Amino acid sequence: MSKTIITISREFGSGGRSIGKSVAEALEIPYYDKELIKQVAEKTGFAPEYVENAGEYAPGKSILAYFAAFSGRADVMGGMNASDFLWCMQRQVILDLVEKGSCVIVGRCADYILKDNPDAFHIFVHAAPAFRADRIVRLYGESEKKPEERLRDKDTRRKVNYKHFTGREWGRCQNYHLSLDSGVIGVEKCVSMIVELVRSR
Amino acid sequence: MSKTIITISREFGSGGRSIGKSVAEALEIPYYDKELIKQVAEKTGFAPEYVENAGEYAPGKSILAYFAAFSGRADVMGGMNASDFLWCMQRQVILDLVEKGSCVIVGRCADYILKDNPDAFHIFVHAAPAFRADRIVRLYGESEKKPEERLRDKDTRRKVNYKHFTGREWGRCQNYHLSLDSGVIGVEKCVSMIVELVRSR
Repeated sequence: MSKTIITISREFGSGGRSIGKSVAEALEIPYYDKELIKQVAEKTGFAPEYVENAGEYAPGKSILAYFAAFSGRADVMGGMNASDFLWCMQRQVILDLVEKGSCVIVGRCADYILKDNPDAFHIFVHAAPAFRADRIVRLYGESEKKPEERLRDKDTRRKVNYKHFTGREWGRCQNYHLSLDSGVIGVEKCVSMIVELVRSR
Repeated sequence: MSKTIITISREFGSGGRSIGKSVAEALEIPYYDKELIKQVAEKTGFAPEYVENAGEYAPGKSILAYFAAFSGRADVMGGMNASDFLWCMQRQVILDLVEKGSCVIVGRCADYILKDNPDAFHIFVHAAPAFRADRIVRLYGESEKKPEERLRDKDTRRKVNYKHFTGREWGRCQNYHLSLDSGVIGVEKCVSMIVELVRSR
């Protein structure tokens, strides 16, 4: 591979984001998550918080978002709703980022957007609900909702968003080159397996 | 893990069977494929060829199979068709085999049958159609059907059989601890990754 482009899709709480960050550090290549959100926010005029949520979850209905989109970029919004517009901008930011060089991108349907990029290696990270519930409570603390509900809610929204914009089923082995159960394999072992595999290519 | 039980599910032509065999050799543990078929054939009275085909593919309609089943084991066949009966016997052979000790089992819905076995590690091997088409022609030669049709036919039958007996979607990441694209990663690299992972546990 001339470049190392790694996309990581993940179930909520599986540690996919931490794995992506550690892999990028080990390989000394950029890791895009907040940076990607910042760029999309700048490009669209949406608030970073809106991009973070709406860009990966089921098409939203926020009035503020529509307002932001229509007031800021009415020129390019013909026939699109805010989610469609965000999808297009997000896609363009991802395509521009990988043009620049090697990187790790977490989420944002990057596996689909880069499905025909010969330098891209696509990974899915998942784990049993009990492992993920325990992990989100440790990392993000308790909330009004039970952890199992939070998992179900986030994963359903990611799934619906993915299906809506890509037409594919989220979490289907054939969409990824490697998929890992971080609960059984262990988050650190997932990192070392990915790093070793990428280095051996 | 007290025992090392590895199940390998695979797309036709992906090299899953070769990978299973090589992993078993490297770990010096038994590999069950033909042996499993032989035991199911002995237990049921079905011909090994019938077990090999019907035990993994969509529920069959072979009159011979029904005849064999009803004539040989009419005592246990109340309300069952040949496919159901074969499923039950195959399941029992798998449960008995893993009782004996470490092993690698390829196919036969073993991932589902052993889903609650804490010693079992479940793997799915897949690859792009072009890689698999090329591989089946090299390994099994040409046939009347185009290689792409052969792939589609076998995979559809495996998928339907899996759904019928397990209620689960075949090839869903969450059903496996590890899934690998053998076309992109390479068959030999898949073997070494699995062996290294199992040894490190």
